[in-house]
Amino acid sequence: MVAESSLDFLRAALRRRELDALLITQPENRRFVSGYTAGDTSVNESAGVLLVPAKGTPLLLTDSRFDLQAMAEAPGFAVHLYPRGLLALLESLLPRLGVRRLGFESHYLLYSTFVKLAKLASRLGVELVPQAGLVERLRVRKSEAQLAKIERAVHLNEAVFSEVFQGIVPGMTERQVAHAIENCMRQRGATGPSFDTIVAAGPNGALPHAVPSDRPLGEGEPIVIDMGLVLDGYCSDMTRTVVLGAPDEKAVELIRIVRKAQLAGMAAIRAGVVGCEPDRAARNVIKAAGYGKYFGHGLGHGVGLAVHEAPSLNRRARKQLAAGMVVTVEPGIYLPGWGGVRLENMVAVTEQGYRLLNRDTTFLDV
Amino acid sequence: MVAESSLDFLRAALRRRELDALLITQPENRRFVSGYTAGDTSVNESAGVLLVPAKGTPLLLTDSRFDLQAMAEAPGFAVHLYPRGLLALLESLLPRLGVRRLGFESHYLLYSTFVKLAKLASRLGVELVPQAGLVERLRVRKSEAQLAKIERAVHLNEAVFSEVFQGIVPGMTERQVAHAIENCMRQRGATGPSFDTIVAAGPNGALPHAVPSDRPLGEGEPIVIDMGLVLDGYCSDMTRTVVLGAPDEKAVELIRIVRKAQLAGMAAIRAGVVGCEPDRAARNVIKAAGYGKYFGHGLGHGVGLAVHEAPSLNRRARKQLAAGMVVTVEPGIYLPGWGGVRLENMVAVTEQGYRLLNRDTTFLDV
Repeated sequence: MVAESSLDFLRAALRRRELDALLITQPENRRFVSGYTAGDTSVNESAGVLLVPAKGTPLLLTDSRFDLQAMAEAPGFAVHLYPRGLLALLESLLPRLGVRRLGFESHYLLYSTFVKLAKLASRLGVELVPQAGLVERLRVRKSEAQLAKIERAVHLNEAVFSEVFQGIVPGMTERQVAHAIENCMRQRGATGPSFDTIVAAGPNGALPHAVPSDRPLGEGEPIVIDMGLVLDGYCSDMTRTVVLGAPDEKAVELIRIVRKAQLAGMAAIRAGVVGCEPDRAARNVIKAAGYGKYFGHGLGHGVGLAVHEAPSLNRRARKQLAAGMVVTVEPGIYLPGWGGVRLENMVAVTEQGYRLLNRDTTFLDV
Repeated sequence: MVAESSLDFLRAALRRRELDALLITQPENRRFVSGYTAGDTSVNESAGVLLVPAKGTPLLLTDSRFDLQAMAEAPGFAVHLYPRGLLALLESLLPRLGVRRLGFESHYLLYSTFVKLAKLASRLGVELVPQAGLVERLRVRKSEAQLAKIERAVHLNEAVFSEVFQGIVPGMTERQVAHAIENCMRQRGATGPSFDTIVAAGPNGALPHAVPSDRPLGEGEPIVIDMGLVLDGYCSDMTRTVVLGAPDEKAVELIRIVRKAQLAGMAAIRAGVVGCEPDRAARNVIKAAGYGKYFGHGLGHGVGLAVHEAPSLNRRARKQLAAGMVVTVEPGIYLPGWGGVRLENMVAVTEQGYRLLNRDTTFLDV
C-alpha cells in the first residue's frame, strides 16, 4: 500500500501545471505511486503504465499477464487491460476522462512510442506536455516507513557480506565470489541484486566498475567488493575492500586514507548543505594524501527504489540536501596496475547531520 | 570478433538510405555490430553507443569505465571516450566525419535524449533520420557460427534443467526451485538467466508469466518451468511441465495434447512459410481437443542475442520465415483454478523444414 499523500502531492503538482493527467511509464515511479510491484523486462517490454488524472480515480493500464497482481497490489487504482495495445486503450480513455493536456515522462518514453502517442494525441486534440522528474522529486525524501525498508535492505546486505566473506579463500575467482554473494542474497530473502555485483581483485580493482573475471584471488592484494540487493522494493549499495592473509602495506595505507575521507564526507552531510560540499570534504582528504587524481568519480548518489537516483554528491552537484534523503558515501583511490580501494556506506540526511544506515564497521577501521 | 560482412551489409544499407552514419544505441545491436559485450544497466545508463559511418572506420563511444574492454573486444572500432557526455563528443565528431544525414535507432532512444540530440543536430545542420530495425534485420537470420552458439546455450539449458530437476522434491517452494536453476546456470558457466525464471505449480501455472511464489510444490500437480540462459551472448528459452509423484490424469491428458500441438507447429515450419501458419497448425490441435480458448498467447518468437526478437509466430504474423531464423515453439493450455501446461523447444528454420535445437526429449512424450 502506498501513502495516499504521494498521490495527493502528485495531483496537486498536476493542477499547478494545468495538466489533466500524467502518464507514468518509469517502473520505479509506477511502483512508488501505485504500490504495483511488477518490473519491466526491458524498456520495450513494460508491465504497465499509470494514468493519473488531476482529479478522480487513478488508472493502472496493463495486460492480462498482470491482471490479478495489479488488482491485488494497487487497490486504489482502476485496472484496465490493453489487449490491443496501450495506444488503443488510451484512444478510448483520454476522451472519456476529458483529458486535454496530458503530461508524459519524457525521460522514460522511447522516441518511437512518443511518435505514435503524438499522432494519437493530435487526432484527439490532446496536448502532450513533457515532464521529467515530477514523480522522482516526490521520491527523493524518504518517509520513516521507506527509511525502515532501506535500513532492512542495508542490514541484509551486511549479513550477506559477512556470511560469504567467511567462505572466501585464495584461489577462488572473482566470478565465483560474485555468484556466491548473489546466491546468498536470494537465499536470505532478497529479490535479487540491485546491480551486477563487483568483485575486483588486485589490478582489476583499478577499474571502478570492473566486471568479475575468472582471475583467482591472491593473498595480500586488495579486493574491492561492491554489492547491493533489493528487499521489498528498496535497494542497498555497499562496498568493502578486503585483503586475504597479511595485507599489502600499501593496501592498509590506502584503506586508512579512504576511510578518513569517508568520515570527512559523512561529517559534511546535513540538511541544507549543497551536494558538492561533502564531495569536497572527502576529496580534500585524498588530495592531501597525494592521491587526488586517483579518485575520479563522485562521492555518492541517492538510493531508494532505484539504486541510482537523486541527489548526487559530486563536484558539480548544486542541489541542497534535505532531511530524509538517502545517499551513499563512497570515496575511492584507483592506482592503475596496482588496484583499488573503495569504501561505501549509506546514510540518511537529517536536519542536524546524518544517520548511518550501516552498522557493521568490520573492514572499515584497519 | 564480428563477421566483417555484417558491417558491410550495414554500410550498404546506410548508402541505400543516403545516410552518412548510423548511431546505434540498442545494446544487442551494439554487440552484434561491434563484438563489444558490455551490457547497459538500464536504458538511462548506457555502456556506450556505436557511430557507424557509411564509409571509413566505425567508432565506439563510451566512458572511461569501459575503455579497456571496448578496445579489446572491438578491435576494428576507434574507441572514443566522452568524459563530458555523449552529446559533447558528437558535437566534435559529426562535423569532423562530415555527417549531414544521421540515422538513429528510434525504437531505442529516449524522447528526452532525442530532444537534446535534435537541438545539437539543428545547430550543426545535421538531419536526423529515424531508423527502426535496420540492425535487427541483419540479426534475424543466423550464421552457422551464431547457430552453434545458440545450440550450446540450449544444451547447457537442458543440462541445468536435468541437474536441478533431480533435486526437486514436494515441499520445496517455487522460488527455491527458480533460485536453484539460476544458481546452477551460473555455476555451469552461463552469464546468467536470459529472463526471470518461471516456476509455477498448480493453479499458479494458469498465469503464463507467473512470478515464482513461496507456495510449496505439491505431488501430482503440473509444474510449469520456463527458463532461459545467456551463454557467450546468445540466449536459450525452454519450458517443461513436470509432475512430482503420480501425475494427475488431467495433467497427462493436457501434456499429450500440448505435445501434439508442438509437433504440429514444428512440422509446419520451413523457409517461405508465413509466421501465422505454424501457429495455426498448433492451435488447431488444441482447438480440436476442446481447449482452444485456453491457449491465449502466440506459438513462438525469435531468439538470438535477445531472448525475444523477430520473427513472431502468432495469429497476426504476416512475415515469411527464412532459413537461419531461430524460433521457439511453445503451445500451452491454461485452465483458471487448475493450472497450466506449456512445452517449449527451439528450432532453426531450414529450406526444407526445421532443425530441432533441443536434444533432450524427457518430459515431452508422456
